[in-house]
Amino acid sequence: MSATATLLLSCPDHQGLVAKLANFIYSNGGNIIQADQHTDFAADLFLTRIEWQLEGFNLPRDVIEPAFSAIAAPMGGTWRIHFSDVVPRVAIWVSKQDHCLLDLLWRQRSGELNAEITLIMSNHPDLKPIADQFGIEFHHIPITKETKAAQELKQLELLQHHDIDLVVLAKYMQVLSADFVKHFPRVINIHHSFLPAFAGANPYQRAYERGVKIIGATAHYATPDLDEGPIIEQDVIRVSHRDSTPDLIRKGKDLERMVLARAVRSHLQHRVLIYGNRTVVFA
Amino acid sequence: MSATATLLLSCPDHQGLVAKLANFIYSNGGNIIQADQHTDFAADLFLTRIEWQLEGFNLPRDVIEPAFSAIAAPMGGTWRIHFSDVVPRVAIWVSKQDHCLLDLLWRQRSGELNAEITLIMSNHPDLKPIADQFGIEFHHIPITKETKAAQELKQLELLQHHDIDLVVLAKYMQVLSADFVKHFPRVINIHHSFLPAFAGANPYQRAYERGVKIIGATAHYATPDLDEGPIIEQDVIRVSHRDSTPDLIRKGKDLERMVLARAVRSHLQHRVLIYGNRTVVFA
Amino acid sequence: MSATATLLLSCPDHQGLVAKLANFIYSNGGNIIQADQHTDFAADLFLTRIEWQLEGFNLPRDVIEPAFSAIAAPMGGTWRIHFSDVVPRVAIWVSKQDHCLLDLLWRQRSGELNAEITLIMSNHPDLKPIADQFGIEFHHIPITKETKAAQELKQLELLQHHDIDLVVLAKYMQVLSADFVKHFPRVINIHHSFLPAFAGANPYQRAYERGVKIIGATAHYATPDLDEGPIIEQDVIRVSHRDSTPDLIRKGKDLERMVLARAVRSHLQHRVLIYGNRTVVFA
Amino acid sequence: MSATATLLLSCPDHQGLVAKLANFIYSNGGNIIQADQHTDFAADLFLTRIEWQLEGFNLPRDVIEPAFSAIAAPMGGTWRIHFSDVVPRVAIWVSKQDHCLLDLLWRQRSGELNAEITLIMSNHPDLKPIADQFGIEFHHIPITKETKAAQELKQLELLQHHDIDLVVLAKYMQVLSADFVKHFPRVINIHHSFLPAFAGANPYQRAYERGVKIIGATAHYATPDLDEGPIIEQDVIRVSHRDSTPDLIRKGKDLERMVLARAVRSHLQHRVLIYGNRTVVFA
Repeated sequence: MSATATLLLSCPDHQGLVAKLANFIYSNGGNIIQADQHTDFAADLFLTRIEWQLEGFNLPRDVIEPAFSAIAAPMGGTWRIHFSDVVPRVAIWVSKQDHCLLDLLWRQRSGELNAEITLIMSNHPDLKPIADQFGIEFHHIPITKETKAAQELKQLELLQHHDIDLVVLAKYMQVLSADFVKHFPRVINIHHSFLPAFAGANPYQRAYERGVKIIGATAHYATPDLDEGPIIEQDVIRVSHRDSTPDLIRKGKDLERMVLARAVRSHLQHRVLIYGNRTVVFA
Repeated sequence: MSATATLLLSCPDHQGLVAKLANFIYSNGGNIIQADQHTDFAADLFLTRIEWQLEGFNLPRDVIEPAFSAIAAPMGGTWRIHFSDVVPRVAIWVSKQDHCLLDLLWRQRSGELNAEITLIMSNHPDLKPIADQFGIEFHHIPITKETKAAQELKQLELLQHHDIDLVVLAKYMQVLSADFVKHFPRVINIHHSFLPAFAGANPYQRAYERGVKIIGATAHYATPDLDEGPIIEQDVIRVSHRDSTPDLIRKGKDLERMVLARAVRSHLQHRVLIYGNRTVVFA
Repeated sequence: MSATATLLLSCPDHQGLVAKLANFIYSNGGNIIQADQHTDFAADLFLTRIEWQLEGFNLPRDVIEPAFSAIAAPMGGTWRIHFSDVVPRVAIWVSKQDHCLLDLLWRQRSGELNAEITLIMSNHPDLKPIADQFGIEFHHIPITKETKAAQELKQLELLQHHDIDLVVLAKYMQVLSADFVKHFPRVINIHHSFLPAFAGANPYQRAYERGVKIIGATAHYATPDLDEGPIIEQDVIRVSHRDSTPDLIRKGKDLERMVLARAVRSHLQHRVLIYGNRTVVFA
Repeated sequence: MSATATLLLSCPDHQGLVAKLANFIYSNGGNIIQADQHTDFAADLFLTRIEWQLEGFNLPRDVIEPAFSAIAAPMGGTWRIHFSDVVPRVAIWVSKQDHCLLDLLWRQRSGELNAEITLIMSNHPDLKPIADQFGIEFHHIPITKETKAAQELKQLELLQHHDIDLVVLAKYMQVLSADFVKHFPRVINIHHSFLPAFAGANPYQRAYERGVKIIGATAHYATPDLDEGPIIEQDVIRVSHRDSTPDLIRKGKDLERMVLARAVRSHLQHRVLIYGNRTVVFA
């Protein structure tokens, strides 16, 4: 399929928005191939995702944003336009566990994720061999309470140097500072529980102790408040009295990699809009 | 919320469809509250559901269809417009099992289903007390091989007399003739298996014999080909070697009533479009 | 099938327990039809459920318990023996919502629950007509902060008078006092969230605000600590940005009645053993 | 944990079986750590899995089977005893798709599968690099209609040479001859549909055409009848009208690797008993 443009827009709801957006695309010769919208009446907010083919679209690519800007300004919202052939650059951050990392690398290689994975960072050196095997640059940046601020600066420089669009915390097991998230907000984290249950440390151990019959995993955008960011995707699996904490950990690994992969894929396809502490994930 | 109009349309895909539809509504003062679309590129088909508020819409209600007709004719598709305050009239057909019937009646009474249930028909008299309790007309129309054709005529007359919009086969356990379905095609059936597995008779017994680890239920539109109609909704539940056929039947009852209720609700909210032997179910 | 006896036993783990229990049954002419066990090595606890046919069992029914007592005493555990033809007597407590009540009544009537439902109690009079329709005694016992202690005494008297074995809180929406639970500990509650997430009031509203992608329901034994009792069963359903709080409530109703019914059925089949704050639910 | 012995036994049901088995273990100083049983009353069959600690067990390992044989012979059934420190030897057969292979290798390496994977065989050379990377012997054995019989002989020799206990068809995409299965019956296959739906070729394409709302995967023992063998595990995932056949394939890959891994793990833990065309999978 030829390249497409995808508009993600949210603005105060009022009459005629769909018509204005559709007219902009149609009058410039574009063919819409997917369009979805959501109106949150409580928040008085209109959110939409529109994807159209660039083949036959009359506006040169560098004119599309300025042209749309004229339409969008009176709407008073926020918007971005993504082009499908501009492949997002992704950094994966890990600690010692390899299952989410390997899963993302395999999915990228098999074409499930439209991304270049150009950087792997870790506070431990353990997973460097995987980075080597896939030919991806690996940085070992250990973190202590004392060095954290300085090391985060280093991390930000690396992200900038590699022109990273998205950081995926694939079991990074470290909390990002509020300052870091402010400077680089496009971070997806996987938490190994069904949030808001068992936020914080040792969720599987605590799930075992509480005697739950189902465990879960949650992918969310990182915010300064730990485990409180907007949720993108969740899933669960049934457990029983026979499952010890190590069993929960084992079953949870499957959840973690599936949930994280789905969230990352939705983000990379520009299907996620954040508003307040919620997300719209367009199917 | 004030009354709304809902357009369901399918037509060959071409440029500008969204713009034309949105302009029709906007130029007449309508406010779109939900819009969804699907393009099936293989079938070259555009399918959409658009719902807008009638409050403030400039066209009188009886002019909406003729006015839209002028827009739609060149598109060469099929469409319907539904008004949310025109409550569909539903007939429920049963045999001897009460679980789906009771479930639908309970959901209707508690406001989950926007419908009037005005007729219960059965080839057995067993469930008449339930109809009486809910104050709904009950007709016992027994069917034998010999009487089937004549009885179906009687059934069609009743549907016409009650001005029925939708027939729900809530475990009716009888096959409708091709002729019947041709005359009255708006029929939703619940089949007690995960179609196409175990089409036909005794699905739970056959599922037991096959040793499956999951059973299912399927709601679909009835067609002359038994269990082959367009699927609206399916769901499943896990079973184990401990589950005998009666256990499958018991677990299946929960599936049947949930799956049927979801399908009926989607239909009543005008969220289902049929094309070929498939459905689009707009969320 | 003829009547069966079911032993539920938990005791410190040591060698030969299975042999001792099996020998007791075999040497008295019993035929085991189901046996399951669980050893919690961390707690050094052995838990088992053994069901055997009473037909051909040599011990008269009133001798079984004393005879088994001699075997069990040295094991130093706790145990109960239930006979399948002694039907448990159940009280259902409700407030204003009818879905769980109707569901339990329907399941009991259709043979899914081996119980006599002999009492319905509520702090509101709204659901009396349902009790009347099913011919079950209904007591309206309003609760205020001031009257709570006195009314709970009245409730305990009623339970005693009706010889109730199990109280099912089918959306009772009132907290039982620690004193009440101490006097009558066999109480199953349904909480409308995936515990421990959203314990306490308004779980659906809070789930909406948190933006979760899955909601749940939890059936647990009531304890003096609100929503902290041993969990028997949980289940979940997927939600999306399109689901408002009323949608969560509607979807949750289906979860609530399924989860509560499964928990009650497991309890009535003597499949649940509590230890610490956990349950073993034998399949 | 120290080594354990696991008995898998099925025999005609009669009184005292549990007592006899438990006495055998107890009288020889064994401590049962897990025991589960199932009685199929229709088939008059008793099936059990008992696991006990070898530490403290009085019988030398090479005497256990003969000693048990004396107990078991009068029972008239079939049985096997496995020792947990005798690690099963597994061959994985593939065609061109790598997802199931990589998943099994990763799980084995991370300790989820108690197995040595000593052989990878394929009718295509494509996945040799993966075998090399994991240091596992790879054999490319192309199959044509004409060479099939001869090549299967070669395959059987390799299995014998490597002393293989279990063959896992990880998307092998070739049918085994009845003759092969007769000579080597311990073969687990993953079929990419919810059997018995879409047995045979191109299940995802056919699922798309049928318009199902859920797809599945099935792990089963291979038998001469294609896709008809005893089912070990199944799972499903929801799809919608938005999912094209390639989407079903992508979603199905996740199912395939999860379902296959669970089935292989259950088999390797000696939790699966086959009888007739059914399995008991002890939890």
